[in-house]
Amino acid sequence: MDYTHMCPKYERAMHLLGKRWTGLIIRALMGGPQRFKDLRQQMPQLGDRILCQRLKELESEGVILRKVHDVRPVRVEYSLAQKGRDMESVVESIQAWAEKHM
Amino acid sequence: MDYTHMCPKYERAMHLLGKRWTGLIIRALMGGPQRFKDLRQQMPQLGDRILCQRLKELESEGVILRKVHDVRPVRVEYSLAQKGRDMESVVESIQAWAEKHM
Repeated sequence: MDYTHMCPKYERAMHLLGKRWTGLIIRALMGGPQRFKDLRQQMPQLGDRILCQRLKELESEGVILRKVHDVRPVRVEYSLAQKGRDMESVVESIQAWAEKHM
Repeated sequence: MDYTHMCPKYERAMHLLGKRWTGLIIRALMGGPQRFKDLRQQMPQLGDRILCQRLKELESEGVILRKVHDVRPVRVEYSLAQKGRDMESVVESIQAWAEKHM
């Protein structure tokens, strides 16, 4: 185990995973692609602006994908990219630990 | 899934897990109890003061145990409490994800 090099990657991962609402959004997308209003409905405690901002950040980090369907009215769907799908087990393990110990 | 109540616990867990050096210290203790100087040796990038401070915090959070052996010279050993042992799989999954995606 290279302890000297472990920390930076781990810490960057934690920075991303630890951001407010990341876990919640990842979990909401585990079941499949969702539209903005569906996400919004599942997370009533988030305002439109905050949800929008977090989705943009997660998209720019390559965690989620944003797909615009060419229909009228325009339909925008969010889904997990591979990086986000791989996050599922991480989020699950954090959540299980938190439920037990927090 | 109760989304409304998921976040606070998850976030408190992330606050603890995400603190600088937490992952490293947990991993170092996975193999069994260690003395301060052994931990220090495995983490040359941490100063005495920082390691000491992080160990105290993790002890007060109930993540690690500090045992003073009644011998001369006094021997102090750190080990994982149940809360810390349960962290192992969390730290492992974060680390695996970080190695792949960071």
